[in-house]
Amino acid sequence: VVNFPEMNGAGNLMDFLDEPFPDVGTYEDFHTIDWLREKSRDTDRHRKITSKSKESIWELIKSLLDAWSGWVVMLLIGLLSGTLAGVIDLAVDWMTDLKEGVCLSAFWYSHEQCCWTSNETTFDDRDKCPQWQKWAELMTGHAEGAGAYVLNYFLYILWALLFSFLAVSLVRVFAPYACGSGIPEIKTILSGFIIRGYLGKWTLLIKTVTLVLAVSSGLSLGKEGPLVHVACCCGNLFCSLFSKYSKNEGKRREVLSAAAAAGVSVAFGAPIGGVLFSLEEVSYYFPLKTLWRSFFAALVAAFTLRSINPFGNSRLVLFYVEYHTPWYMAELVPFILLGVFGGLWGTLFIRANIAWCRRRKTTQLGKYPVLEVIAITGITAVLAYPNPYTRRSTSELISELFNDCGALESSQLCDYINNPNMSRPVDDIPDRPAGPGVYNALWQLALALVFKIVITIFTFGMKIPSGLFIPSMAVGAIAGRIVGIAVEQMAYHHHDWIIFKNWCRPGADCVTPGLYAMVGAAACLGGVTRMTVSLVVIMFELTGGLEYIVPLMAAAVTSKWVADAFGKEGIYESHIQLNGYPYLDVRDEFTHRTLATDVMRPRRNDPPLAVLTQDTTTVEDVETLIKDTDYNGFPVVVSRESERLIGFVQRRDLTLAIKNARQKQDGVVSSSVVYFTEDAPQLPASNPQPLKLRRILNLSPFTVTDHTPMETVVDIFRKLGLRQCLVTRSGRLLGIITKKDVLRHMAQMMNQDPESIMFN
Amino acid sequence: VVNFPEMNGAGNLMDFLDEPFPDVGTYEDFHTIDWLREKSRDTDRHRKITSKSKESIWELIKSLLDAWSGWVVMLLIGLLSGTLAGVIDLAVDWMTDLKEGVCLSAFWYSHEQCCWTSNETTFDDRDKCPQWQKWAELMTGHAEGAGAYVLNYFLYILWALLFSFLAVSLVRVFAPYACGSGIPEIKTILSGFIIRGYLGKWTLLIKTVTLVLAVSSGLSLGKEGPLVHVACCCGNLFCSLFSKYSKNEGKRREVLSAAAAAGVSVAFGAPIGGVLFSLEEVSYYFPLKTLWRSFFAALVAAFTLRSINPFGNSRLVLFYVEYHTPWYMAELVPFILLGVFGGLWGTLFIRANIAWCRRRKTTQLGKYPVLEVIAITGITAVLAYPNPYTRRSTSELISELFNDCGALESSQLCDYINNPNMSRPVDDIPDRPAGPGVYNALWQLALALVFKIVITIFTFGMKIPSGLFIPSMAVGAIAGRIVGIAVEQMAYHHHDWIIFKNWCRPGADCVTPGLYAMVGAAACLGGVTRMTVSLVVIMFELTGGLEYIVPLMAAAVTSKWVADAFGKEGIYESHIQLNGYPYLDVRDEFTHRTLATDVMRPRRNDPPLAVLTQDTTTVEDVETLIKDTDYNGFPVVVSRESERLIGFVQRRDLTLAIKNARQKQDGVVSSSVVYFTEDAPQLPASNPQPLKLRRILNLSPFTVTDHTPMETVVDIFRKLGLRQCLVTRSGRLLGIITKKDVLRHMAQMMNQDPESIMFN
Repeated sequence: VVNFPEMNGAGNLMDFLDEPFPDVGTYEDFHTIDWLREKSRDTDRHRKITSKSKESIWELIKSLLDAWSGWVVMLLIGLLSGTLAGVIDLAVDWMTDLKEGVCLSAFWYSHEQCCWTSNETTFDDRDKCPQWQKWAELMTGHAEGAGAYVLNYFLYILWALLFSFLAVSLVRVFAPYACGSGIPEIKTILSGFIIRGYLGKWTLLIKTVTLVLAVSSGLSLGKEGPLVHVACCCGNLFCSLFSKYSKNEGKRREVLSAAAAAGVSVAFGAPIGGVLFSLEEVSYYFPLKTLWRSFFAALVAAFTLRSINPFGNSRLVLFYVEYHTPWYMAELVPFILLGVFGGLWGTLFIRANIAWCRRRKTTQLGKYPVLEVIAITGITAVLAYPNPYTRRSTSELISELFNDCGALESSQLCDYINNPNMSRPVDDIPDRPAGPGVYNALWQLALALVFKIVITIFTFGMKIPSGLFIPSMAVGAIAGRIVGIAVEQMAYHHHDWIIFKNWCRPGADCVTPGLYAMVGAAACLGGVTRMTVSLVVIMFELTGGLEYIVPLMAAAVTSKWVADAFGKEGIYESHIQLNGYPYLDVRDEFTHRTLATDVMRPRRNDPPLAVLTQDTTTVEDVETLIKDTDYNGFPVVVSRESERLIGFVQRRDLTLAIKNARQKQDGVVSSSVVYFTEDAPQLPASNPQPLKLRRILNLSPFTVTDHTPMETVVDIFRKLGLRQCLVTRSGRLLGIITKKDVLRHMAQMMNQDPESIMFN
Repeated sequence: VVNFPEMNGAGNLMDFLDEPFPDVGTYEDFHTIDWLREKSRDTDRHRKITSKSKESIWELIKSLLDAWSGWVVMLLIGLLSGTLAGVIDLAVDWMTDLKEGVCLSAFWYSHEQCCWTSNETTFDDRDKCPQWQKWAELMTGHAEGAGAYVLNYFLYILWALLFSFLAVSLVRVFAPYACGSGIPEIKTILSGFIIRGYLGKWTLLIKTVTLVLAVSSGLSLGKEGPLVHVACCCGNLFCSLFSKYSKNEGKRREVLSAAAAAGVSVAFGAPIGGVLFSLEEVSYYFPLKTLWRSFFAALVAAFTLRSINPFGNSRLVLFYVEYHTPWYMAELVPFILLGVFGGLWGTLFIRANIAWCRRRKTTQLGKYPVLEVIAITGITAVLAYPNPYTRRSTSELISELFNDCGALESSQLCDYINNPNMSRPVDDIPDRPAGPGVYNALWQLALALVFKIVITIFTFGMKIPSGLFIPSMAVGAIAGRIVGIAVEQMAYHHHDWIIFKNWCRPGADCVTPGLYAMVGAAACLGGVTRMTVSLVVIMFELTGGLEYIVPLMAAAVTSKWVADAFGKEGIYESHIQLNGYPYLDVRDEFTHRTLATDVMRPRRNDPPLAVLTQDTTTVEDVETLIKDTDYNGFPVVVSRESERLIGFVQRRDLTLAIKNARQKQDGVVSSSVVYFTEDAPQLPASNPQPLKLRRILNLSPFTVTDHTPMETVVDIFRKLGLRQCLVTRSGRLLGIITKKDVLRHMAQMMNQDPESIMFN
């Protein structure tokens, strides 16, 4: 039989959860949440609803609604983020084409839609129809010639500048948080940090609009990261409908994790990949319940997007491919080489981008974000237009690179010599020597590769929405296609080599260069983000190619190993570090031999720890303490002599409680004694009325001993999501360790040689 | 600058990790491991290797080998479990067919292989060839007639009895742990429990052999669960090659999690599904590193299996399907109904099976496992033979049910009337009224459904290897196919109803009954196991049908909701509870308002807690304490008066240390004082030499205050994998909570009305 000495009476631990005055239990901006406390608040709320539900039918219905609200939120997130993604896709399509020309029959049609609805389009020349006119043709009547080219070129740049200027201005004026990819910040928020307004309605609106503008401007950026941010904004929006989520920062983060999954799901049409991305890359606390709900939200979102059908092919997948040739074991060598390339690209990109972003932060450069965006857009547009592979949108480019030549015979990438009169070798291999178009394409692709590599470094991190999935994939896909064509030509010209034996069979390609593009894209994306499982799943959901899981995995793992050899952090972690967010990475292993006593405050020579005593401090003392320090909370001890810990009180709660008491409770003056015990202390009759504050006292503060190894402390902070932890020795309070102390210590230990720190 | 007061000298916390005498730091059978301690031991080992690696090239190579050993183990697990799965598949194929007949040209060929290699097989009648003879034909020369039927029937039963007798005898004699599915036990082991021999070499060998026998005997069981067990045995085997894994129970469990993924991967040819299954269903501690390694192991395993190619179709997937008709929104209604059916089946199965297993445990029945297996095999064989849908192997049945009629025109399930002279309706819908074969099949399927439902309840839990994925899927597939045919015929006969408008188009089926079978299978499997995401992923990897994710998800989620309404536990959790394993489920939410003080021992009226003092206990006192109690460890306090906690010492370490000291250390006698402080206490000169035991003292025991809510305590136990936790108030030791106390308390609170407990 269990007994509950504390369960009745006002000295109840749970009482402070009843929110006796507003704002108790909430957090300030840029503060860290206490996961354990949030969880316990939610359990309490749940318990209250359950016990109430037995009282009446209405309360029962309310409790059922509450139980189902999680699924309702998921449904709403799926619907809204799917819709937004569809709208963004349609708008980007239209505005990207607007840079080149306009549809005369209906100006709101994109190039493809325009010619698709036209009756005069022939199947051979799907891209040309009289309704679609380039700007030069429309203005001067001449479609060809140097003048028309220059005019088109000029207007292309002008549109690009206009779009990017609009984007950066909107971000600057209305929602500064709408810039960047958002994933580093979302990771930080999900790990328990408060950034008010980062997921607000304005951010949602402005990010959606400016994302369209930024992508349409032709800059080397993608919409995938920002879509995750948009989906998380949707999640936050719907959280506010239910007090279960809006009033509990822990529960809110469960919803946001699921929203992140929905975001990736609509970005790529990859629901399972989205869930795994949220699990592997973004989320911090991911219970199984969230796994199911994420999957539901991701499915609804993907399904909504599919119903809108922005790509016009009624497929869920972005780059559907169908290859007709199997892959050979020996091909693993080029695949692994692509993995190495991906890893090197990842390292180069992260280092260069971080160096550039640091320069932006610390020099004059950061003061002119609009000018920077305009300049980069100008350079991008000027350099991109002449090359057909950079002029078009990046996702179209990737799509062309992924496909094998069966699907795109008209492309210059498929300009193989198909001469039936050619002297055939005896074993009747198919005739696939590369034609001049292929060699031309190779040159252009090589130029495009260099261009993309350089410009992406400068683009990511500007004050506009920018994702880097698509640019990374483009770099990899270009490199992969080049390697693929090289291998193909080698196999064709040296089909008698033992290694290429049986590769070339009549009626089929020797190898599939498109597969190399796919593998290369996976490798480069992996090098930059360090995803593995979610990457492979996204890639095969993206392309529908379940059979190519081994090549993809080989490249992804190689790329991760190579990149990890140069530095453990992916681009998101690097940006988190650059911005100094208090993010405790679950992947960093802390292996140093420090103890809690080395990290706790007060350090040697510091003033002693600011503590309250259980029944001798006065209101004035407390107020002085609050004024003189900026700690988030204060331990409460039995007495200054014994230093035995009885609990912990939050600064915010203390301030509110005293303010409240001063206003509402008679007799509470500056000299009133504040007490945290069950019963009021024995005081002389002349003393003013004491103030009981036990209800704001956390009677179960987290403690470790001073001998606890820091690796254990780090583990505890990570797994339990603590905000602070008290350090004791034989029951005596010695100090306090906050999450920021842990992060500072970890940074210190990582950067310096552990041996040199340990013995000086 | 950090300082390390404890870092030098013998009083070091880390010293006891140096394993001063053998077996310190290991665990006894049926004990719980301490995850935090295991982790800290591994970090220490890692630190040692890193610092040594700077000394010489050889040490550097050793450290690199150590770093790569994880991947090597994964590779080995993948290779071995893939090979074993391939061998099992081939053997099962052959032995299942052996019950009916034999291949004359080569007796080791299965029916399919026999006729495949024969030149006399026609494409129309692939199943018949002169080389393959049924037993009656071989023995009497007559292939047809009542006599031949009876003889075949009799021999079928005889073979089945022989196989199952061999299986149960081998299990009984050589490896009692080889019975059952193994997943409940693996879940328990992964959560940190020690069951020696459960993953041993004998279990591996016997489980592999008896699995073949059990499946071949035609019992209603599958090989999927046992394959997970087999893969985990492989994992354990390869762990013993590397001291990194064999000497650390925490690290070992990371390998086992990955092995479980490899097991499911080969069971279904579903590597991603396997990883998610391990994550969602089996594993307890699943860091991201394990996610990557699991994926690698699962891929290698699937790839190995594919190279062995036991199904002869060179596909990774078990039941490859290709449907030609899209699904309609309105079909979600029957899909959701199938989900409800799946949930009800899950509930029925779990309740009935647990009731039967409890009966087996508690009554005479449990004493005759061989007889039970023989009896059930007899009943199964007698009832299964007459019905063509139960006579064949269950996976063949599922494969047929999943396929649409294009792929299996010869089946009686596809006996539709295709009369071109029939009076056609005006709108030219395809003629697909069901023929007599379909109606006949429906009857047989209905009988098979009832038979499978009943017999599976009695089969799962017998003393032979038995998985229930395949039987559950069979139940669902049969029900689904029946519903599918019903919907199809409704749509055909009432194609003018608004709901069926546009369903039936010329040249295509109205609906795909095979899809219903797939959805039904997912629903039933979900009802029994409560998987969701991994289930859907397995189903679509199993069938290659990425497009049917929404129907599958709808059914899976419905089935889970329905089943959860009747009871939260899946079959594995129920079996864990039935067997009383100390498993702390991550999914159970503890929502009661109890505090640590209600759970800790000693309870009120109990004798006081058995503690040691830091410098006044004698060797004899300690020995008496060890003899009189059976606690796993003892808190060490400053003195009995102050009760201030300084550390915790393990019983096992204490026993070993004293034994060691008595043997090797001169002057240590029964009256020697044992001390845990830095310096020896001041003792009279006449006293014998004191014994210093600080190195076995854990100076950072985990503590909570008596006011800590139990929900927090449960959370801490779960997330940190604690073995015990000390309870203090203001620094004074009050009691102890062990994992078993937590489990006991949770069980107590779940079964009783919380209100009634709380106030009595």
